[in-house]
Amino acid sequence: MALIVKKFGGSSVANAERVFNVANIIVNDYKKGNDVIVVVSAQGDTTDDLIEKAKEINPDGASKREMDMLLSAGEQISISLLAMAIEKLGYPVISLLGWQAGFNTDSHYGFARIKNLNTERLKNEIDKRNIVIVAGFQGINRYDDITTLGRGGSDTSAVAIAASMKADLCQIYTDVDGVYSADPRKVDTAKKMDEITYDEMLELAAMGAQVLNNRSVEMAKKYNVELEVLSSLENKPGTIVKEIVKMEKTLIKGVAKDTNVTRISIVGVADTPGIAFKIFNKLAQAKVNVDTILQSVGRDGTKDITFTVPGDQCKTALKALENAKDIIDYKEISCNEKIAKVSIVGAGMESNPGVAAKMFEALYDAGININMISTSEIKISVLIDVDYADRAVKAVHDKFID
Amino acid sequence: MALIVKKFGGSSVANAERVFNVANIIVNDYKKGNDVIVVVSAQGDTTDDLIEKAKEINPDGASKREMDMLLSAGEQISISLLAMAIEKLGYPVISLLGWQAGFNTDSHYGFARIKNLNTERLKNEIDKRNIVIVAGFQGINRYDDITTLGRGGSDTSAVAIAASMKADLCQIYTDVDGVYSADPRKVDTAKKMDEITYDEMLELAAMGAQVLNNRSVEMAKKYNVELEVLSSLENKPGTIVKEIVKMEKTLIKGVAKDTNVTRISIVGVADTPGIAFKIFNKLAQAKVNVDTILQSVGRDGTKDITFTVPGDQCKTALKALENAKDIIDYKEISCNEKIAKVSIVGAGMESNPGVAAKMFEALYDAGININMISTSEIKISVLIDVDYADRAVKAVHDKFID
Repeated sequence: MALIVKKFGGSSVANAERVFNVANIIVNDYKKGNDVIVVVSAQGDTTDDLIEKAKEINPDGASKREMDMLLSAGEQISISLLAMAIEKLGYPVISLLGWQAGFNTDSHYGFARIKNLNTERLKNEIDKRNIVIVAGFQGINRYDDITTLGRGGSDTSAVAIAASMKADLCQIYTDVDGVYSADPRKVDTAKKMDEITYDEMLELAAMGAQVLNNRSVEMAKKYNVELEVLSSLENKPGTIVKEIVKMEKTLIKGVAKDTNVTRISIVGVADTPGIAFKIFNKLAQAKVNVDTILQSVGRDGTKDITFTVPGDQCKTALKALENAKDIIDYKEISCNEKIAKVSIVGAGMESNPGVAAKMFEALYDAGININMISTSEIKISVLIDVDYADRAVKAVHDKFID
Repeated sequence: MALIVKKFGGSSVANAERVFNVANIIVNDYKKGNDVIVVVSAQGDTTDDLIEKAKEINPDGASKREMDMLLSAGEQISISLLAMAIEKLGYPVISLLGWQAGFNTDSHYGFARIKNLNTERLKNEIDKRNIVIVAGFQGINRYDDITTLGRGGSDTSAVAIAASMKADLCQIYTDVDGVYSADPRKVDTAKKMDEITYDEMLELAAMGAQVLNNRSVEMAKKYNVELEVLSSLENKPGTIVKEIVKMEKTLIKGVAKDTNVTRISIVGVADTPGIAFKIFNKLAQAKVNVDTILQSVGRDGTKDITFTVPGDQCKTALKALENAKDIIDYKEISCNEKIAKVSIVGAGMESNPGVAAKMFEALYDAGININMISTSEIKISVLIDVDYADRAVKAVHDKFID
């Protein structure tokens, strides 16, 4: 007997047949005596359809508050339908909206952070031996207004519940059967991993492996929630994400690429203390997620600062810097959107200097030029021309993983 | 400067164009300095589509709790879209779900009653000069679960807000331009009324005139809320429903028919005290809305009790009586679904005995047989064969209204 949290994405509940497939997976675990809490996203294309309706009304972009009101209706539909399917199978079930399940967030509509999870209702329902179906991706703020958690928010909802309810396992169901050493649709030699650490998963997620949202992995790491990534269509074990203590040798766990990345260079910034703070503070205020940062050595009293942001935040970043022209002096800003980031991830990499060289060799052999390099304890990333991204992933993967 | 509550049905907001039409109506009143609270139903066929989805999952009928969870998503979509349209027009607006607007109901899922309306949030938003868009038809119960108010519930939501907020006027927008003396699609001589009393409207509503839900009229009467029934597509005054003090002569305000009616006869009931109580108590427990009741004079120690119920509650009524066979003794139950009720409504009718005779004469002239008659202070209803319903309405209308 365990408490299991399960999360199903929109494609897993896209139609009545799939809803019953998911209902059967849930009931199977419940029948064994487990307590089961399920987090669901909106059905299939519901969210896109709702966004389309909003665009019809206001193509310039509706307020985020009203967008969250609109979009959160999507999960409301999917949770009630899934609950009805479980009722039909003859098991006790109740669906809960984000606010009913206790999700209190900040007021950052469209990308809210969970402030706390009041588990009273969840606990009551579990005590009654109800299967609980929770709307992912949503919560309420202090004004009782509905907020959404942004992309991949349902993963975060699931991990938050698993953490707060001290669940034994948090299973994230997707359309792939686990975490691979590279995208199996692109690299035919990609291998499924049985286990991976949080940090490795985090690097893979941040690097563009779309399997798990990185906020959810961060939270899982912080609260030590054991995750399993598995398929809702095949009944077999997936990849377990957890803290693995013994780490005997350098293991390259995966190669990932991220094409949703833009490189921004600020040229000719005054070489004075505090300038980096001013720049990145402005960007943080504008809610821009800055990734890799490189700063050139100062020369002639100025220096250059280069960094990457997600492609869809590029305009916001440029606007924020434009507006801050009076406090941040610079010669010019250049921007390159035709960029991809290719990364290798693996614990213990830092103690093995040969790894970086091996990666660069693979790229050299494939005739690919490197724009920018950044490294962390468990990852090496390079920025390259986006046209070479798939070729680079294959070259690096084949060099490391056999 | 006044506080105006406006209610728009699903067809008024069925698509983007209609949403903007409604947004313009709202903004026009707001621009004049009025405070405006708007109640909206789900868009066009949304509710039917959601019911269809539920049937696909569980054709035997899902639990009412989950149905309410599902259906209430419909208004969530329409309120946010309408708010976006008003944003687009450049006016301050906020959408609120039933629970956010303070609707507390009992736990009778699918047909909940409003227990109280906590107006704190509504008042705050009005104080901020926001146009407030409220999801009709929905509330929450004491367990924080979503409930719906049943058919015509959005009218009730609007009147409840108007009553609690002491609004100056509650406008119910429909696809007709007011209340008519008969269904204008059936009777070409039907006339639009400028004013009508609550009681007259109530009788017309109960008698099958689909313009206003009778719960909402009852509430409007109780709290003295002035209603206006008008068209969302034509910019002209509708029909005002209010207490009209001076009543100089008998005025037949309208002729209505109701074909959703079944006559149930319980034959050979013991002629003992308390038997009517037992029967109608059982029916009340089964939530059957009993309308006209007639009881025959006792003979040979038994009597017959005949009453009408809405057509869709016939099965429930029969089942309840079947189950109560041990406490209610009777010979047999007969049931006639091929029945229509035709009624004339008008204040002051009681003091004019010629009215009933005139109605019966009209039916006699048209060759229509009367099954059952019931009268109240302001209404006379007859039950007739459903096939003659339209003919009866025309005959009676032409006799009274010129």
